[in-house]
Amino acid sequence: MALIVQKYGGTSVGSLERIQNVAKKVSKFVDEGHQVVVVLSAMSGETNRLTEMAKTMQARPSKREMDMLLTTGEQVTISLLSMALQEKGYGAISYTGWQIPIQTDEVHTKARIDSINADKIHDQLNQGKVVVVAGFQGVTANGDISTLGRGGSDTTAVALAAALKADECQIYTDVDGVYTTDPRVVPEARRLDTITFDEMLEMASLGAKVLQIRSVEFASKYKVPLRVLSSLTEGGGTLITSEDNNMEKPLISGIAFNRDESKLQIRGVPDKPGIAFALLGPIADANIEIDMIIQNQGQDGTTDFTFTVPRGDRAHAHEILEGIAQVLGAREVIFDDSIAKVSLVGVGMRSHVGIASRMFKVLADQNINIQMIATTEIKISVVIKESELESAVKSLHQQFELDKV
Amino acid sequence: MALIVQKYGGTSVGSLERIQNVAKKVSKFVDEGHQVVVVLSAMSGETNRLTEMAKTMQARPSKREMDMLLTTGEQVTISLLSMALQEKGYGAISYTGWQIPIQTDEVHTKARIDSINADKIHDQLNQGKVVVVAGFQGVTANGDISTLGRGGSDTTAVALAAALKADECQIYTDVDGVYTTDPRVVPEARRLDTITFDEMLEMASLGAKVLQIRSVEFASKYKVPLRVLSSLTEGGGTLITSEDNNMEKPLISGIAFNRDESKLQIRGVPDKPGIAFALLGPIADANIEIDMIIQNQGQDGTTDFTFTVPRGDRAHAHEILEGIAQVLGAREVIFDDSIAKVSLVGVGMRSHVGIASRMFKVLADQNINIQMIATTEIKISVVIKESELESAVKSLHQQFELDKV
Repeated sequence: MALIVQKYGGTSVGSLERIQNVAKKVSKFVDEGHQVVVVLSAMSGETNRLTEMAKTMQARPSKREMDMLLTTGEQVTISLLSMALQEKGYGAISYTGWQIPIQTDEVHTKARIDSINADKIHDQLNQGKVVVVAGFQGVTANGDISTLGRGGSDTTAVALAAALKADECQIYTDVDGVYTTDPRVVPEARRLDTITFDEMLEMASLGAKVLQIRSVEFASKYKVPLRVLSSLTEGGGTLITSEDNNMEKPLISGIAFNRDESKLQIRGVPDKPGIAFALLGPIADANIEIDMIIQNQGQDGTTDFTFTVPRGDRAHAHEILEGIAQVLGAREVIFDDSIAKVSLVGVGMRSHVGIASRMFKVLADQNINIQMIATTEIKISVVIKESELESAVKSLHQQFELDKV
Repeated sequence: MALIVQKYGGTSVGSLERIQNVAKKVSKFVDEGHQVVVVLSAMSGETNRLTEMAKTMQARPSKREMDMLLTTGEQVTISLLSMALQEKGYGAISYTGWQIPIQTDEVHTKARIDSINADKIHDQLNQGKVVVVAGFQGVTANGDISTLGRGGSDTTAVALAAALKADECQIYTDVDGVYTTDPRVVPEARRLDTITFDEMLEMASLGAKVLQIRSVEFASKYKVPLRVLSSLTEGGGTLITSEDNNMEKPLISGIAFNRDESKLQIRGVPDKPGIAFALLGPIADANIEIDMIIQNQGQDGTTDFTFTVPRGDRAHAHEILEGIAQVLGAREVIFDDSIAKVSLVGVGMRSHVGIASRMFKVLADQNINIQMIATTEIKISVVIKESELESAVKSLHQQFELDKV
């Protein structure tokens, strides 16, 4: 017998029929003798519907009232699933965030969980009931309803699993696991049976958006075994765990990529101490996230800075940079929107040299020019032309034999 | 400056535009310097929509989960109205039942209010805010969400007004007040400026369903001045108050009627002590509400019983009565579905004799036969043929000069 926390997203509870399907899936685990806690999102589309209503009422809706409004979405699904389970003859009880309670800070629309009281849930599980909890929502010390932001239901599930000391936290989505890379680009992409938290974080932050990064960080911190699997098909999905030293580590676990960045370059900046901060401080102050940064010293006492930002923020960043360039007397500011970032991710890299050079050779063989390079302990990222992305990912996937177990 | 509790029903908040209208109405009172607490129902149609969903999930939906589901309806309207008020530049904050808290007993779907903590509301009012409270809902000692049953938002408003010691509780509906009788039957029917709680209770229980009886009883008990008025038009509506001895009481305040009853008669019952209980006990046990009762002693040692029940319960009551008739050896059981009850209501009756005889004369002049008569201190009711109802109400309205102030 295990204690399992299962989270079903908006698509999985998107209709009454699908909610009945979830009841069926849950009941199977109960029949196998497990204790099950279910975390639900609102029905898909509901959050948007409510948001539209709010915007009709108020140009910039009050965040406290927005949380009050949006949290009705999960309150609907948890009660309906409890009814569906009861109809099938299973004991079930629903709880909102404040009823548990899931205590959060006061930052409406993106609150962080402070603490969870697991007593009520344990009580109900011990009475043989399935406990159905509203995801995404909590309550402030003040007694106001708060929400954890988009995708917050994943965080709720992981936090509950940690508080309950659950054996596993299962996140049901519309994909059946984590793949070596996006199967839409590489049809040979293979589902991974396991992946480490660190790898998953690198994959997720690069656009492989199976899970919210925050929930993976949370699971990693509290060592909650996390499994991603499909609510529509059968299959074991992908288990995300802390690194196991006995585990035979593959060199590379996957290839992540991101087409959503732009490159900015400021050239001919008079080189002096503090120049990096003078340039990048104002960009950060504007809440623009800088990803890769390269500085290249020239021979004429000037230096060039190249960095990437989310494509949607490029125009804003460019504007800021033009102002700075004028003040500092830099030569010019240029940008490029047609770039892409490709990354090899794998904990096996730590103990193997030569991965980077192998990667560069594969790209060279394809005549793909590398514009920027960045590395971490378990990741090598390169920036290339966006038009060459697919061929880069395909060649790397094949050369590193990611299609083979 | 007064403290006013205003309640708007489902029709008044039935669309985003109507919610904006409510914001406008509320803001007018704030501009006049009043402190305003607003109680809202769910958008019209929403409760039915949610109920249908529940029935798809569970043949007989769990009452606890039903309350969890339905209370999302008001949570949506209170947040939207708060936003609309804020957009107009007014401070506003919404509260659900559990946030106040409005403590109820544990009877899900028809809970009764145990207590209300008014502190939070007073705090917010003193900060100059409009406080928007979800009607219909509360919280049990256990921390479960409860509801007060259909029409419970009126009860919430009155209970809040009592707890806050409000100067007035205004119930906004789709009618503009309480009338001397139904204007669809008597076009000359006149809106009453004031009516006493006792009269209102008699009017309401007879089918003049402007207000939920429970909220009137509550208002009467806690002496909360209650005003019924229209959310769509201007006008002072009808003020319902405790009886004022200095007030010049009209003889008759209004004429109520009810077409929804049936008459049952059991004839030739051997007359002996306890016979009334033997007959009526089983009817009451079946949860059938008996309204008027008449016993008529015959000369042959037998007696006849005549009583009225809601028309929908007549078949069931008849069946029970047939069984009893057999046991007691009664002669026969007959029924009549085509009856109607007409009642004159007025606190002025207490100090005036002869109202009944005047009523009987008016009906006799119209050739209307009276089948049953019942009286209370402030009401005279007669049962007549349903087909003669309209002409009875019209003649009485005219003869008692209810169209004149």
